[in-house]
Amino acid sequence: MARNTNRQVLLAARPDGAPKESDFKLVERPVPEPGANEVLTRTIYLSLDPYMRGRMSAAKSYAKPVEVGAVMTGGTVGQVVASKYPGLAEGDIVVGLTGWQDYALANGKGLRKLDPAAAPISTALGVLGMPGMTAYTGLHNIGRPKEGETLVVAAASGAVGASVGQIGKIKGCRVVAIAGAPEKCKFVVDELGFDACLSHRDSDFAEKLAAACPNGVDIYWENVGGAVFDAVLPLFNPFARVPVCGLIAQYNATGLPAGPNKIPLLMRSVLSNRLRIQGFIVWDFAEQEPQFQRDMAAWIREGRMKYREDFVDGLENAPKALMGLLKGENFGKLVVRVSPDPMR
Amino acid sequence: MARNTNRQVLLAARPDGAPKESDFKLVERPVPEPGANEVLTRTIYLSLDPYMRGRMSAAKSYAKPVEVGAVMTGGTVGQVVASKYPGLAEGDIVVGLTGWQDYALANGKGLRKLDPAAAPISTALGVLGMPGMTAYTGLHNIGRPKEGETLVVAAASGAVGASVGQIGKIKGCRVVAIAGAPEKCKFVVDELGFDACLSHRDSDFAEKLAAACPNGVDIYWENVGGAVFDAVLPLFNPFARVPVCGLIAQYNATGLPAGPNKIPLLMRSVLSNRLRIQGFIVWDFAEQEPQFQRDMAAWIREGRMKYREDFVDGLENAPKALMGLLKGENFGKLVVRVSPDPMR
Repeated sequence: MARNTNRQVLLAARPDGAPKESDFKLVERPVPEPGANEVLTRTIYLSLDPYMRGRMSAAKSYAKPVEVGAVMTGGTVGQVVASKYPGLAEGDIVVGLTGWQDYALANGKGLRKLDPAAAPISTALGVLGMPGMTAYTGLHNIGRPKEGETLVVAAASGAVGASVGQIGKIKGCRVVAIAGAPEKCKFVVDELGFDACLSHRDSDFAEKLAAACPNGVDIYWENVGGAVFDAVLPLFNPFARVPVCGLIAQYNATGLPAGPNKIPLLMRSVLSNRLRIQGFIVWDFAEQEPQFQRDMAAWIREGRMKYREDFVDGLENAPKALMGLLKGENFGKLVVRVSPDPMR
Repeated sequence: MARNTNRQVLLAARPDGAPKESDFKLVERPVPEPGANEVLTRTIYLSLDPYMRGRMSAAKSYAKPVEVGAVMTGGTVGQVVASKYPGLAEGDIVVGLTGWQDYALANGKGLRKLDPAAAPISTALGVLGMPGMTAYTGLHNIGRPKEGETLVVAAASGAVGASVGQIGKIKGCRVVAIAGAPEKCKFVVDELGFDACLSHRDSDFAEKLAAACPNGVDIYWENVGGAVFDAVLPLFNPFARVPVCGLIAQYNATGLPAGPNKIPLLMRSVLSNRLRIQGFIVWDFAEQEPQFQRDMAAWIREGRMKYREDFVDGLENAPKALMGLLKGENFGKLVVRVSPDPMR
């Protein structure tokens, strides 16, 4: 790739339902030059995450949508090509929110320098990055796992779910996983040590889930919504906690499901079981990042925290990969290799 | 009433939908004699509260249902007639959970002695009792009102709602009340000082509620459920809290309302606004009773906490009064005068 061409993936149109190729547009622009306090980075890895579907829509959410015609937002690991920011120098590896493009200009303040000797640099987008910290802070602050409790985690082989379940095991919980494919179930049980795994695609999923949770559910980590939530609802124990982290099963929905309206059923369980249902995003707990980095790094070193990455090659394949992610086609943390990793 | 006859109201049948007269049965039994550590009390006041509808059903909840043929459960203020419990003597005024009857036997440990000089003794069933403490603890622990926030309280003229709104005012909130009748709205605005009041029976209720909350909703105190919740749902601000205290609009329901299923809509708001929805009952915070008694008594003394009682005469009228309560016919804390108040 020539240094004077910057490929960018723009949001071409707001999707109606599931995103399609034509909602994205690959363009070529000149590589920009950094101004005062700015840094030019070459993207090595681009993180693809479910929240990106929300940014493609105009609906009110916790963050502003990407404008049509703007570069798609996204976390990246990159290498500094040129720097006018005192704290960063050419060759440094940095993590930041620089979007779907080969090169990016960023204020140096928005970038965090990585130590490439400490861990593979791609993990700064996964287990040691936003998804890992999401799992850590949501479980610590809302889920509050106690020894012997049953933790049900949806999308359990994904970047967030895999960490949630492993932290649950570290805290002494029985971890019941939900995943969408037999090989994912095999992975979370055999490799990650979860106690059981069920496929939400099974016709008797609700019965199997009840059977796998003979002592009810104390924590339900909500990543998906929809039918999975419906199946967990009758199983809540008194004082159960529900950290609401994502609703991937709903993101592409264009309307509400058929009736009856089950809100009264949900609220009845909230009242009679004293449930706590709470939405959050990772940055609500930004001040806990040092403690997260310390604990997670230690768990990885001790072999108690494993992670799986799912690499896709080429920026041009990012749109298709995100479409697949929203259908559960990835297996592990989905990362686009935009340019060669100088550390490998 | 002769000392040798004890009238009791029994649960005769589990209601199907709204309770009716035939679900209750008035019987006469001999007045019992206290055994070791027991106290015989004569009921002066019987509290009627929405939670009683739950106890009449067999459905799983936070407390066991009343058995068919058993005396209806309920909080009372009574006078000790005979005592074999060291801490209580004839003539003492006590509050306890002694049920729908003229006389009751109770272990002395389950009764709390009142100081009749401190406040009218009936208030131990209302503003200084379970409903007041429900408001206090739910708001303190879950609602967490901050100055300048908007607090919406349903069933605002009721025993719990009136205290919730007044505590909200003490904490500096804008308090928007919902009540079912013009005289109730007039009362909570003119007498309790709430900022606005709307009737949930108005056809344009949702529009009026939105207009009354120009800065959105930070706390919604859930007493009712159903259509009121639906109207509040689009108005939540980021980080809004929803203490779920009761669902009176649903208690008599025999099925779920027609679709669509709005759970995805609710969960979307939970996620994008980081809502905290949490059910509770007052005894979850039992250790906070001393602080509640101290603060509430002070607020009453200072004229910042007002209360309204709705008295019904005669134990035999309790079933009809509870049926009315479930339809919102009471106006203030509903209390049955079972026998004359010796303090008045």
